[in-house]
Amino acid sequence: MSSESPTYSPLYRQIKSLLVQALEAGEWRPGELIPSEMELATRFNVSQGTVRKAIDELAAENLLLRRQGKGTFVATHNDPRAFFRFLRLVPLSGIIEPARSVPLECWRAKAGPEAARALELKVGEPIVIVRRVLEFAGKAVVADEIYLPGETFAGLNLEMMKDAQDSFYTLLESRFGVRMIRAVERVRAVAADRASAEILHVAEGSPLLSVERISYTYGDKPMEWRRGLYLTQDHCYLNELG
Amino acid sequence: MSSESPTYSPLYRQIKSLLVQALEAGEWRPGELIPSEMELATRFNVSQGTVRKAIDELAAENLLLRRQGKGTFVATHNDPRAFFRFLRLVPLSGIIEPARSVPLECWRAKAGPEAARALELKVGEPIVIVRRVLEFAGKAVVADEIYLPGETFAGLNLEMMKDAQDSFYTLLESRFGVRMIRAVERVRAVAADRASAEILHVAEGSPLLSVERISYTYGDKPMEWRRGLYLTQDHCYLNELG
Repeated sequence: MSSESPTYSPLYRQIKSLLVQALEAGEWRPGELIPSEMELATRFNVSQGTVRKAIDELAAENLLLRRQGKGTFVATHNDPRAFFRFLRLVPLSGIIEPARSVPLECWRAKAGPEAARALELKVGEPIVIVRRVLEFAGKAVVADEIYLPGETFAGLNLEMMKDAQDSFYTLLESRFGVRMIRAVERVRAVAADRASAEILHVAEGSPLLSVERISYTYGDKPMEWRRGLYLTQDHCYLNELG
Repeated sequence: MSSESPTYSPLYRQIKSLLVQALEAGEWRPGELIPSEMELATRFNVSQGTVRKAIDELAAENLLLRRQGKGTFVATHNDPRAFFRFLRLVPLSGIIEPARSVPLECWRAKAGPEAARALELKVGEPIVIVRRVLEFAGKAVVADEIYLPGETFAGLNLEMMKDAQDSFYTLLESRFGVRMIRAVERVRAVAADRASAEILHVAEGSPLLSVERISYTYGDKPMEWRRGLYLTQDHCYLNELG
C-alpha cells in the first residue's frame, strides 16, 4: 500500500482509488480485461473480498464491466448501453430510430471566459470547437456545439469525424484515449434563435430544449463542454429518478 | 426460504425481494429502524453477509438508509436528500432558495384515457386532481397538475395540503402510507399557453420546460401522474449522468 493513501478511508476504498489511478494511467485500456481478483489481491496485498468490494463499486459506477465467466473489463463507449447513458433523448412514439451524427465544422480557438470556466482552463488557452447535428430517422433533432481542451485533442479534425463509424465519445476514446466517466447536464427551455431555427427547420422563437453538459474523465477532470439544442416535438429527454 | 422464490436468482437477491415484500406490507414503516443484520440472517436462515449484500443494494436504491452506529432505517421523504432526488430544479445562481408549495385546487374526477394509462387504472375509475404552484424566493417557478388514484387518496383535500408543513410526498407518506420509490420523467420544451403564462407571470408563448412524471411505489405500482411546467429563466433542471 502506498503511504500516500488517504487515512480513515476503508481499505476497499483505498484499493478502489489505486484501481482508478491505474485506469487513469492507461495501464488497462478501454475494452481490455483487467487482472483477476486473485492477482489484484496479491498485487495490493489485501484479501480477495476487499478487491471484490472495490470492483463492485467501480462496476456500479460503470467504470468497469463484469462479464459472466469472462472476467472484468474496462468499460468502453462502444458498449451499446453507453449511448443512452449520455444521450437521454428518446422518440415519443417509443419506436427506436437510427441516429446519425453529421459533423458541420471543427476549428481551433482560444478559450473565452465561459469555456475556460467549464473546462477549467485559463482564458486564452487553446480549445477545439465542433459543430454537429444529430439526425433521427433523417430529421435534424439536435444541434450541438462542443468545446474541447485544445492540447488533448490537437489532432481532431472534420475528416476524422466524418470517417468515424461510431459515436463521438467512441472516437475520442479510440483516437485520444479519453474516456468520459460522468457528466452533469443543465436543462432549460429556450426560444430558437435564427441559426438554430434554420438547422432544426423550425420557426424562429420555437421552444427548444437547451442542454448544457460538462463531461468528466477520470479524476473529475472536465474534458468537454457541450451546448445542445434539442427539438422536442417528437422526442423527449427521459430521466429516471430514485 | 419461500418455495416461490425465483429460481436462478442469487441468494442475496432473493433476500432482497423478501425485504421489499416486508416493506411493501408495511412491516416496517418509513423512518423506522429495521431489525439488525444478525436478526434478519436468523429469520431468513442465511449468512449475515448475504443479508448485508441485500441491504447494500436496497440502500443504493434509496429504499433503506444506513446510519453510522445507529442501524438501518426505512427511507422516508422527510430525508432532506429526498427533496432534490425528486425535484431536479436548481437556481442558476447556485444560491439555495426556500421553496414553498401553494396548493390551488383539489377535486375528484373520473380518469380519462391519458390518466388511466399513466396510473394503470380503467377509464372512468376515480382519481384525485391537484393543482399547485411551487414558489422559490416568493416567485412562482413551477405549475403542477397532479393526478392520483382516487381510492388510495380518497381523503386528500385542499385544507390538508395547506396545513402540511412538509413536502407533498411527505404528506402522502404520513397520511396515506404511500411512499414513492422511483419516478420516470419526460422533459420537453413547450410554449406557455394562456393559463400557465398567467400563473408563471410570463408572456403567452414563452418557452417553458414541460416535465411529465410517473411516480411508482413498491412493486412498480404507479401512484402519481404529474404534469409540471417549469420556468427556466433563473432555474435549470439538473441531471447527473454516468
